[in-house]
Amino acid sequence: YLSEPHTAAIIPCPFNGGQGRKGVELGPNRLIQAGLPSQLTSLGWSVSYDPSEDPREAVAPPLPEGDAPIGRMKNPRLVSEVNRKLMGRVGDAVGKGWLPVTLGGDHSLGMGTVAGTKSVHPDAALIWVDAHADINTPETTPSGNLHGLPVSFLLGLSGTDVAPFNSWMKPCLRPTDIVYIGLRDVDEGEKRLLRENGIRCFTMHEVDKYGIGRVMEMALDHVMGGREMPLHLSFDVDALDPTVAPSTGTPVRGGLTFREGHYITEAVAETGCLVALDIMRQEVNPSLKDSMSADETVAVGCSLARAALGETLL
Amino acid sequence: YLSEPHTAAIIPCPFNGGQGRKGVELGPNRLIQAGLPSQLTSLGWSVSYDPSEDPREAVAPPLPEGDAPIGRMKNPRLVSEVNRKLMGRVGDAVGKGWLPVTLGGDHSLGMGTVAGTKSVHPDAALIWVDAHADINTPETTPSGNLHGLPVSFLLGLSGTDVAPFNSWMKPCLRPTDIVYIGLRDVDEGEKRLLRENGIRCFTMHEVDKYGIGRVMEMALDHVMGGREMPLHLSFDVDALDPTVAPSTGTPVRGGLTFREGHYITEAVAETGCLVALDIMRQEVNPSLKDSMSADETVAVGCSLARAALGETLL
Amino acid sequence: YLSEPHTAAIIPCPFNGGQGRKGVELGPNRLIQAGLPSQLTSLGWSVSYDPSEDPREAVAPPLPEGDAPIGRMKNPRLVSEVNRKLMGRVGDAVGKGWLPVTLGGDHSLGMGTVAGTKSVHPDAALIWVDAHADINTPETTPSGNLHGLPVSFLLGLSGTDVAPFNSWMKPCLRPTDIVYIGLRDVDEGEKRLLRENGIRCFTMHEVDKYGIGRVMEMALDHVMGGREMPLHLSFDVDALDPTVAPSTGTPVRGGLTFREGHYITEAVAETGCLVALDIMRQEVNPSLKDSMSADETVAVGCSLARAALGETLL
Ligand SMILES: [Mn+2]
Ligand SMILES: [Mn+2]
Ligand SMILES: [Mn+2]
Ligand SMILES: [Mn+2]
Ligand SMILES: [Mn+2]
Ligand SMILES: [Mn+2]
Repeated sequence: YLSEPHTAAIIPCPFNGGQGRKGVELGPNRLIQAGLPSQLTSLGWSVSYDPSEDPREAVAPPLPEGDAPIGRMKNPRLVSEVNRKLMGRVGDAVGKGWLPVTLGGDHSLGMGTVAGTKSVHPDAALIWVDAHADINTPETTPSGNLHGLPVSFLLGLSGTDVAPFNSWMKPCLRPTDIVYIGLRDVDEGEKRLLRENGIRCFTMHEVDKYGIGRVMEMALDHVMGGREMPLHLSFDVDALDPTVAPSTGTPVRGGLTFREGHYITEAVAETGCLVALDIMRQEVNPSLKDSMSADETVAVGCSLARAALGETLL
Repeated sequence: YLSEPHTAAIIPCPFNGGQGRKGVELGPNRLIQAGLPSQLTSLGWSVSYDPSEDPREAVAPPLPEGDAPIGRMKNPRLVSEVNRKLMGRVGDAVGKGWLPVTLGGDHSLGMGTVAGTKSVHPDAALIWVDAHADINTPETTPSGNLHGLPVSFLLGLSGTDVAPFNSWMKPCLRPTDIVYIGLRDVDEGEKRLLRENGIRCFTMHEVDKYGIGRVMEMALDHVMGGREMPLHLSFDVDALDPTVAPSTGTPVRGGLTFREGHYITEAVAETGCLVALDIMRQEVNPSLKDSMSADETVAVGCSLARAALGETLL
Repeated sequence: YLSEPHTAAIIPCPFNGGQGRKGVELGPNRLIQAGLPSQLTSLGWSVSYDPSEDPREAVAPPLPEGDAPIGRMKNPRLVSEVNRKLMGRVGDAVGKGWLPVTLGGDHSLGMGTVAGTKSVHPDAALIWVDAHADINTPETTPSGNLHGLPVSFLLGLSGTDVAPFNSWMKPCLRPTDIVYIGLRDVDEGEKRLLRENGIRCFTMHEVDKYGIGRVMEMALDHVMGGREMPLHLSFDVDALDPTVAPSTGTPVRGGLTFREGHYITEAVAETGCLVALDIMRQEVNPSLKDSMSADETVAVGCSLARAALGETLL
């Protein structure tokens, strides 16, 4: 699905409007500083990345009407507008046969990235690696933070046909298109939605039961069904255990090991079908005390991206 | 095997008479303070727990003759009397169709809890999750600490027909009733007893070899043999790696991961056959320096109990 | 392959001439101090070890011509001479039916140990457990540090027929004799050499994919092919994750767990075919701050040696 020479389009999104915590908007810059663009070049990729562009502009659009909550949704206009633009940007890249590498930023950005991929490849499959299901609807969300809702909007679940999102976003994902890996902190309402829609989930229980090798085999088989199929990988770093990626939001124990996380990206790379990648919620706590943790987490973000783009141990 | 509505009877046992270290008697209170009763209520259980009862009374019975060692056994009258009462209490709960959740305290309490379960369900199977086999006899024990002996008394091995235990306790466990998971620090004398009695053990070597998924399949198949069978789960928190549950006696490296520990309890819950649960040796070092470690270990104890009582990731 | 009574010959090699870092030469002494000789005695081995011998003499031979680099190779005469003697010493032990346990020191010593084993058992198989492949040639080495080259000399790859090594060392290893486990940091030149020579590698990707149980099954089957075959195990402690063995050179994340490392040695012991063991790169940073880390790493080195010589959990 990619043009020659293979080109990665790095899209930094220092966005934290989908949730309440500070720090998550610092991640993209840290991955860039750590050398991600040149690392991808070393792997043989052409890299499209403009260091002179200020990524903060794309995530701070003018909001003439202000941004009061709509129902429970917080910052709805901001999240909507940022994702509308991101959809365009990801769609442009995918349309050119480039592989967009979106660096978040909170996971509300998944709306825009997946919608962008789907605008070019309506049959694309989605692999969502996360401790959370991010499938609350405007009605089920306990907090109103939109980083917990992107999947329900993509699926067009009941309650998501609301302004301002419905002005630009149409449901683009079928329940059979998506597979989850790494779940371990899912709200009751989300559990119901996952069941009702028959969505395939590999929680940590299944990772323990089968091992990550068979889980990836089953997960890829579920969404690809033995055919070639464009793949979008949306990787929330909080899927990893907090001991591996300590600098990430509210930590949930019992997550993926360093190696399981990389195995997922390596297995996706081996399919040769990856068309878009998100590295999300790379949170950076600016306090000095946590600088080691942040460095480790940034290093993991870079190596996950490299592995997804074909870096192998041998 | 349980009555409706499903009822968990929480039995705190702040007992440290089966061994020499302080701290293990603080565990039950910490699990209660952390909210275990209401967590079980949230899972849909009725909870029988009387906060006005002082659990220290049950573990400090009068000992008119004093408690000099008998042979090598230390505190024999205390351990015997506490377990005699505990057997009654666990047996009462199981008899009513309630699920007793005994919070230790040291693992000598396993005598009383398992004997209690067996008094109602003579065919009950026992899953003993532990770094240690706790199967020394009064003759093989190197230390005389009775927390290393409960299994030999339950089996009625040679040398266990001794006062004061033989006044109330009869062998109630057949070698085929029990399966061990997590062993990695077993005395030479214990190795011989395990071999001679043909007891099925899944040490950490087997957990590595087969993965925890297949180990649980084999372990449950061994004790249940494809039939429905009441299950008693006695979980010594030191089965977990010291990095997971740091606040637990003498740590032994190479233990179960956080997830493997929870997988065991989840797999037991899935059988629908659990009739009694012990969460044991939840040690709490009262020194300030270790308060983080203690908090983590207490949190793990609570989540193991929840998982055994049906909490799932999805 | 061993004489009765089974005898382990402990060969301490406090050598750091194959690389630039200090500390690796302190390892052997620490393993001795930690009680390795008597631990092996407790396992039922006769132990050949002379505490009055100063192991530093064997690694500080006179070098009358000095030791200027030859090509890119640093300390070539020192590394050559130390390994020439080590080959003799290991060969003597193996020839007597003793099991040499070489304690490194840097992994350039693998030249001498494996050549010694092969001098007695030309068909011996080699299991190389390492984060690195150590298969650079004098032409491909980026650093000139000879600890990265031992395997190429053993195989006799192009460029290794050079002085001073070719005066005593002949290629003795066929590409089908060796199997790697734990690789995760391999130079580009090394990747090419591994491919060209068709050498079987189980990187961390394969450990994740299959689990360590099946990996050991496949690895042993590859080198032994179902027959009895003398085995040389060369274990570089940096194969373990840095969280397990923190005191070891440049740490590489994503390594073997404590248990996987021990599973490897246990599985080798179960074959009954081990004829020689190296415990390598047991680095000890002498700074006070790291003394806990060093202790842990030393303890792991001892327990790996014990497991390879037959210690079991049960
Ligand atoms: Mn997410
Ligand atoms: Mn998440
Ligand atoms: Mn125990
Ligand atoms: Mn124990
Ligand atoms: Mn090495
Ligand atoms: Mn190495």
